[in-house]
Amino acid sequence: MAKPKKQPRPKAITPKGFRDYFGQEVTQRTEMLRAIADVYHRYGFDALESSAVETVEALGKFLPDVDRPNEGVFAWQEVDENDKGDWMALRYDLTAPLARVYAQHRNDLPTPYRRYAMGVVWRNEKPGPGRYRQFYQCDADTVGTASMAADAEICAMLSDTLETVGIPRGDYLVRVNNRKVLNGVLEAMGLGDDVATRDAVLRTIDKFDKVGKAGVRELLTKGRLDASGAFIDGVGLSDDQAEPVIAFLTSKAAVTAGTLANLRAAVGDSKIGADGIDELEQIGALLDAGGYGTDRIEIDPSVVRGLGYYTGPVYEAELTFEIFDEKDRKRQFGSVAGGGRYDDLVKRFTGQEVPATGISIGVDRLLAALREKGRISAQATGPVVVTVMDRDRMADYQAMVAELRNAGVRAEVYLGNPKNFGNQLKYADKRNSSIAVIEGGDEKAGGIVQIKDLILGAKIAESATLEEWKERPSQFEVPRGDLVAKVREILDSQD
Amino acid sequence: MAKPKKQPRPKAITPKGFRDYFGQEVTQRTEMLRAIADVYHRYGFDALESSAVETVEALGKFLPDVDRPNEGVFAWQEVDENDKGDWMALRYDLTAPLARVYAQHRNDLPTPYRRYAMGVVWRNEKPGPGRYRQFYQCDADTVGTASMAADAEICAMLSDTLETVGIPRGDYLVRVNNRKVLNGVLEAMGLGDDVATRDAVLRTIDKFDKVGKAGVRELLTKGRLDASGAFIDGVGLSDDQAEPVIAFLTSKAAVTAGTLANLRAAVGDSKIGADGIDELEQIGALLDAGGYGTDRIEIDPSVVRGLGYYTGPVYEAELTFEIFDEKDRKRQFGSVAGGGRYDDLVKRFTGQEVPATGISIGVDRLLAALREKGRISAQATGPVVVTVMDRDRMADYQAMVAELRNAGVRAEVYLGNPKNFGNQLKYADKRNSSIAVIEGGDEKAGGIVQIKDLILGAKIAESATLEEWKERPSQFEVPRGDLVAKVREILDSQD
Repeated sequence: MAKPKKQPRPKAITPKGFRDYFGQEVTQRTEMLRAIADVYHRYGFDALESSAVETVEALGKFLPDVDRPNEGVFAWQEVDENDKGDWMALRYDLTAPLARVYAQHRNDLPTPYRRYAMGVVWRNEKPGPGRYRQFYQCDADTVGTASMAADAEICAMLSDTLETVGIPRGDYLVRVNNRKVLNGVLEAMGLGDDVATRDAVLRTIDKFDKVGKAGVRELLTKGRLDASGAFIDGVGLSDDQAEPVIAFLTSKAAVTAGTLANLRAAVGDSKIGADGIDELEQIGALLDAGGYGTDRIEIDPSVVRGLGYYTGPVYEAELTFEIFDEKDRKRQFGSVAGGGRYDDLVKRFTGQEVPATGISIGVDRLLAALREKGRISAQATGPVVVTVMDRDRMADYQAMVAELRNAGVRAEVYLGNPKNFGNQLKYADKRNSSIAVIEGGDEKAGGIVQIKDLILGAKIAESATLEEWKERPSQFEVPRGDLVAKVREILDSQD
Repeated sequence: MAKPKKQPRPKAITPKGFRDYFGQEVTQRTEMLRAIADVYHRYGFDALESSAVETVEALGKFLPDVDRPNEGVFAWQEVDENDKGDWMALRYDLTAPLARVYAQHRNDLPTPYRRYAMGVVWRNEKPGPGRYRQFYQCDADTVGTASMAADAEICAMLSDTLETVGIPRGDYLVRVNNRKVLNGVLEAMGLGDDVATRDAVLRTIDKFDKVGKAGVRELLTKGRLDASGAFIDGVGLSDDQAEPVIAFLTSKAAVTAGTLANLRAAVGDSKIGADGIDELEQIGALLDAGGYGTDRIEIDPSVVRGLGYYTGPVYEAELTFEIFDEKDRKRQFGSVAGGGRYDDLVKRFTGQEVPATGISIGVDRLLAALREKGRISAQATGPVVVTVMDRDRMADYQAMVAELRNAGVRAEVYLGNPKNFGNQLKYADKRNSSIAVIEGGDEKAGGIVQIKDLILGAKIAESATLEEWKERPSQFEVPRGDLVAKVREILDSQD
C-alpha cells in the first residue's frame, strides 16, 4: 500500500453552531430529563425514541417558519450506484417523527397513544450567540383523541413537572388560550373567508408581546413607526373592525367566569367561537376537579404564541419571577414550555385526520432558570483525591480508593506524575475536590493517614484568626482503619 | 403564493438500517446508562457530551476496518455561496470526538482527564439483521497518563459496572492481555522489522476465537481449508517459527504467576516483551490490592480482539453463562465490553503523543444479556386505568387519577370514545394494565368505586375452580375514599 501524502494537521474545533457539554452541564440535564420522565410516566405516557435520521420525504421538507424547501435541515443523499439514493435528514423536532411513527405503527399502538420523547434535534440555521444548531427537546403528546380531558391533563402534567424539577408554585403560570376563539372573533368581524386578511391579523397578533395593545391597534389599522424609525404598514382595518381583536387579547378578567363572559361578547354568535369557549370552560372545570387552581393554570387570551400554528387549545408555561437581563434591566424570565392541539398530525401519511395535543419543554431554558434561582449550582463538588507520596506503593493508594468507592464515596487516586506534591494539590483544586488523603512513609509506618479538608482549609486561609486556626484544624491524622469514617464525617460537615 | 402541486403521500417508514424504540426498550436502556454513569462517577470520571456533528477533517476520514476514505460515515457539505462549505459528518464512535475535544480544550481540562460519554453513534454501513446504522456507545477513558494504575482502575470499574447492572460475580470475567507482549513474541521470532509478516500474523491471531489452536497453527504456516471448503493461504512460517505465537496464545496457567512465567519464556530476551509482562504484573498487583481477584479479572493471553488496534494492555469483558443461539445450540453469551491503551490519541491534532486508555460497553448487548437471564422483563406493567362510565362526569374521573398520581401511582383516565365499555377493557389489556377502576351512576350515588384486579382476573379465568373463584374475587367494591389505599394494596400483592 502506498503511503498517503502527509497532510496538514486538522483543526480541533466543532463545526460552527455546535458545542460540547462538560461534567455538570451533562449530569444536571440528565437528572432533569429523568425527573420529567418520572412525571410523564406517572401520567401514563410511554417513552418513544425514534430514529434521529428520517427520509426527507417522511420528515416533510419544511420547518415551522421556513417556506423554502430543503432549508432548515441537515440532509444528504444515500450513496448508490445510480446516484439515485434516497435523501435522508436529521430530525428538526420530535413532532414530525411522531407523525411518521404513529402512521407506521398505528395498528400496534393503543388509542389514544400517550407518548413522551426526549432527545437531540438539529436545525440547519445560521448560528448566533446562544443559538445552537443542535439542542434538546422534551415533548409529550396524546394522539388519537379530541377530548378536552387530554388537553387538561397535559396542562396539569406541565404544572406538576415544573414543580418537580424545582420551580415552586407561584413562580410559574401555565396559561391557556384557544385558536377557535380567535377564529370566532375573526368570523364575527366578517373576516371568516378572507384568508389574506386573516393571516395578516394572525401575524399582527403575534407581536402583541412586543408592541402591546396600542401597538397592535396601530398595526391592525393604519400602520406604525417601529423603534428604529421604520414605518410598518398596517393591515388596513378600520378602528371599529380592530376593536374585537383587541377585546379578545385583553379579555382576561379576575376570575375564569369573567374571562369566558368577555370572550362570549367578543365572538358574538360565531359557532366556532362558541365551541372554542366551551372547550376552555371544559378544560377549566377538569383542572378544577383535579385540584389545579388558577394560581397554577389559568385561561388567558393574551397568550398569542402558537395561535397561528395550532388548531384548538394553546398552552404556554411562563416563569413569573424576575431576573436581570444582559443590559441589567429587570424582566420576567418568560416562557419555558409551550404546546397545543393540532388535528392533522398524520394526514400527510394516511389521509385521515387524527387529533393530537401536546407540549414541548425547553430543557436548556429551564436549566438556565434553575441556575438563575440558585436551585442548582454551576459547580460540581469533585472527588476525594488520594495523593501519591511514594510511587512504589500505588497498590496501597488503590486499596484506599477501592474502600472509599465501595462505601459510595466518589474517589480517585492521583494518576499524574507524583514527583511534585504541589502539582497534586493543584490537581485536587482543578477537580474542585473537597478532601485530599495523604499517606507518606512515616504515616504508613505509624498506621495512620492524613486527611485534608480542602474546603475548610480554603475558608480558614481566607479569613480565620490565629485562634480559630488552632481551634479548627483543617487537617486530621486518623488511624488507617478510620479512613472511610472520617472522610464521611467531613463530607457530611461540608454539605 | 401559488399552490404547490399535489404530491403523492410520503411513506411512513424509517430509512433502511434505522429503527424506533418503544416504552421499556427506552426506559430500561436509560436506567442502565444511569446505573453505569453512577459507577463511572464514583471512580472520578466526568461526563462529556460532545457534538454529534463533527467536521470531516476533525473526525478523520477513517473508521476501524475501513480503508476507503469517506466510507463509513454519513457526511454532507455545508451550503455556502461558492459551494465551498465545510464537510460535516455524524460521529461514528465516541473516541474520535474525545481526541478532538481533548486537543481543543486540553489547557482547561485536568491532567489526567477521566471522562465518560454515552450516546448515539452512526455508521454508514450496509444494514443487516440486528445490525443497525444508529446505536449506543458507552465509553470511559483516561487521557494523559501512562500509569498502569489507570488501566487497572478501568478493569476494576468494568467489573463493578457489570455487577451493578445485574450480572452476578461468576457470570462474567474481565480478561486482560497486552499488545507489547505479542510484539515481544514477534521480536523473539525475528519478525520485529518485517511489517508485512507481522501484520499477517496479527490478522491470523484475530481468528483464534473461531479456528482455535490447530487452525491458527495451519494459518501461520502452510494454510488451511475452511468450513466452506475454500483454501485459505497460510502466512508461510515454519512450524518452529509458529510455535512461539501458539505458546503466547495458550500461555494462561492456573494462577497469574504461572501465566507470567509462560509469557517470559515466550518473549525470550525481547525488551518490549518484558515491558509488556511487567505491565500485566503491575495491573495484577494493583487489582489484587483493590480486592479484585481472578474470579473477576484475570490475565489471559488468549484475548485477541483489539490486539491489532491497541498499543499496550487490552481488556475484554465476557459473560460466561450459556445461552441457546438461534440454531438452538448452547454457547457462551460472549463479549459485552472491550478496550485498551492507545498512545496516539491527539497526535493528529497537536503532534504530541498523549497516552490514553479506555473501554467501551455494548449497552444493547448487555441489555439483551439481562433479558436472557430474566433479570429485566421485556414487558412493562401498565398504568391503572380509570374507566369512563358517564362521559359527563369526566371531572370525577380526572379527580381520581389526580389522587392516584399524587400518591405516586401511575394512572390514566380512558380518553377514547367511552360508549363501548368492552373497548375500554381491551384498551387496558393493550396497555398491560394491572388494575381498572369503575364508577358508574349507581356507584357514584352509593359513594363507592369498583376496583378490578386484572392480573388476578386473568389468572382466575385461566385455571380457577368455582370455589377459588368465590373465595378470591378479582373485583372489589370499596368506599370512594379508600380508592388510593385499595389500589396500593392490590399493586403490592401483584409484585
